[in-house]
Amino acid sequence: MRMSIIGGGTVGEETRETAVAVGRIVARRGHTVVCGGLGGVMEAACRGAKKAGGDTVGILPTERRADANEYVDIAIATGLGHARNGLVVMNGDGVIAIDGAGGTLTEVGFSLVFDRPIAGLGTHDVPGVEACETPADAVRYVESELGI
Amino acid sequence: MRMSIIGGGTVGEETRETAVAVGRIVARRGHTVVCGGLGGVMEAACRGAKKAGGDTVGILPTERRADANEYVDIAIATGLGHARNGLVVMNGDGVIAIDGAGGTLTEVGFSLVFDRPIAGLGTHDVPGVEACETPADAVRYVESELGI
Amino acid sequence: MRMSIIGGGTVGEETRETAVAVGRIVARRGHTVVCGGLGGVMEAACRGAKKAGGDTVGILPTERRADANEYVDIAIATGLGHARNGLVVMNGDGVIAIDGAGGTLTEVGFSLVFDRPIAGLGTHDVPGVEACETPADAVRYVESELGI
Amino acid sequence: MRMSIIGGGTVGEETRETAVAVGRIVARRGHTVVCGGLGGVMEAACRGAKKAGGDTVGILPTERRADANEYVDIAIATGLGHARNGLVVMNGDGVIAIDGAGGTLTEVGFSLVFDRPIAGLGTHDVPGVEACETPADAVRYVESELGI
Repeated sequence: MRMSIIGGGTVGEETRETAVAVGRIVARRGHTVVCGGLGGVMEAACRGAKKAGGDTVGILPTERRADANEYVDIAIATGLGHARNGLVVMNGDGVIAIDGAGGTLTEVGFSLVFDRPIAGLGTHDVPGVEACETPADAVRYVESELGI
Repeated sequence: MRMSIIGGGTVGEETRETAVAVGRIVARRGHTVVCGGLGGVMEAACRGAKKAGGDTVGILPTERRADANEYVDIAIATGLGHARNGLVVMNGDGVIAIDGAGGTLTEVGFSLVFDRPIAGLGTHDVPGVEACETPADAVRYVESELGI
Repeated sequence: MRMSIIGGGTVGEETRETAVAVGRIVARRGHTVVCGGLGGVMEAACRGAKKAGGDTVGILPTERRADANEYVDIAIATGLGHARNGLVVMNGDGVIAIDGAGGTLTEVGFSLVFDRPIAGLGTHDVPGVEACETPADAVRYVESELGI
Repeated sequence: MRMSIIGGGTVGEETRETAVAVGRIVARRGHTVVCGGLGGVMEAACRGAKKAGGDTVGILPTERRADANEYVDIAIATGLGHARNGLVVMNGDGVIAIDGAGGTLTEVGFSLVFDRPIAGLGTHDVPGVEACETPADAVRYVESELGI
């Protein structure tokens, strides 16, 4: 399966650690991390996944694959700016949202549009997002919604 | 000015009346209505604007201008599917959200991304959206944020 | 009807005059000019249309309506970069190509994809593009293909 | 390196064999095939690459990864329709065009826009496209332009 991990591009240390943990657990469970390919939560989640031997896909807003963080295996350039947010969600089977602001909120919305189960860790409090306490809970929730 | 009016594509009678009223007030205040060009809130807002002699722009998800509702003056086809949601917000100076589900939530998120003032009428309860009681209040709030 | 006028963003004086003439004739024939909203052929075509009292739509690659040239009536921001080229063609009923390089070639291709009649003035020599001698010939060809 | 292989979605037997050969050579040379993910040239190129043990990326016009042909390893859904054509080119370092109609012509144009070296096999005769006789010649040309 593929798990889209979404969240802020600039985050504090605690959030970064949460994202690393999510990436690691997702990878250990055999899933590929899909993200927006840049910094903050995106980079931390990819780092966690790579540490655990997993695969990562980064779907970038820019035209340059070189803009991807160093933990992205497959970088996809789009040149679409913020319109690429929908693609990040569309390319996962489930979604885990960590922290984040307006951009993350668009991705939460796309999760509902594309009918993806979505777990939240300290993110937008919106109906349809399952608020979870820990990275393990978040992964478990999405897996269970996907029938895994 | 241009006001993006966003909301559900299929709505009940009360919401429709709210959207008609918002469109009418926006037009009377001399602003152009920008919307997603389809039915529900989009159609009702355009209808209200046209009744008041205003102008309307509809930015469609499909490749066919003919898919626009009959109250759209300038139909813009995009063929982008849900990725056109960002364009609806980007092309207004302020935003009024009425009701709506996931698609509207993406547009609320884009309002934050593009730093557009946004008023809400019975829509997502999210920080950054000014919850208003009446169509007139919503228009007034956005105008005041835009320095009008 | 709407006529998409496509061509280079930086052009010489002769090409600019051709684009002004095309814009003027298109407007006199009662059609709206659709273009990419920036400089060169786009600006010249809009200028010609406005001089003749016509209407102009500019579909921009950037997120800012303010990037449109001064002769654009309805500016549509997209933030899609070069992916907006398809929208320029999609939003016209017919296409007139003037000069141009790679970007224009993508638009010639989209004209074939979306089955738009296309006339060329000193542009890419590609099957499907009707090479014309004068602006009047180009407009006449597209009109005739559209049954006008 | 990544090689974008572009061409028609419905093709004859000879063209299909050419595309299989291109995919095979590209893979043997250690490059990843990037394509539009659907049938015709796209499927044949992926099939050739997989036979030779290579990797393939398919960037789809639809919202469903499941629409990819069976030889695509990494399917990227976009939901952008024809606007995804630019992404196919943007995500390769060089381009090989085989046969094709309007859609392929847009991709030839994007190759010029994004400054990608492009070889052609029985495709559009456009300045900037290096017309080649054989699959091996086409791969060699693009490699040499990329300094390999």
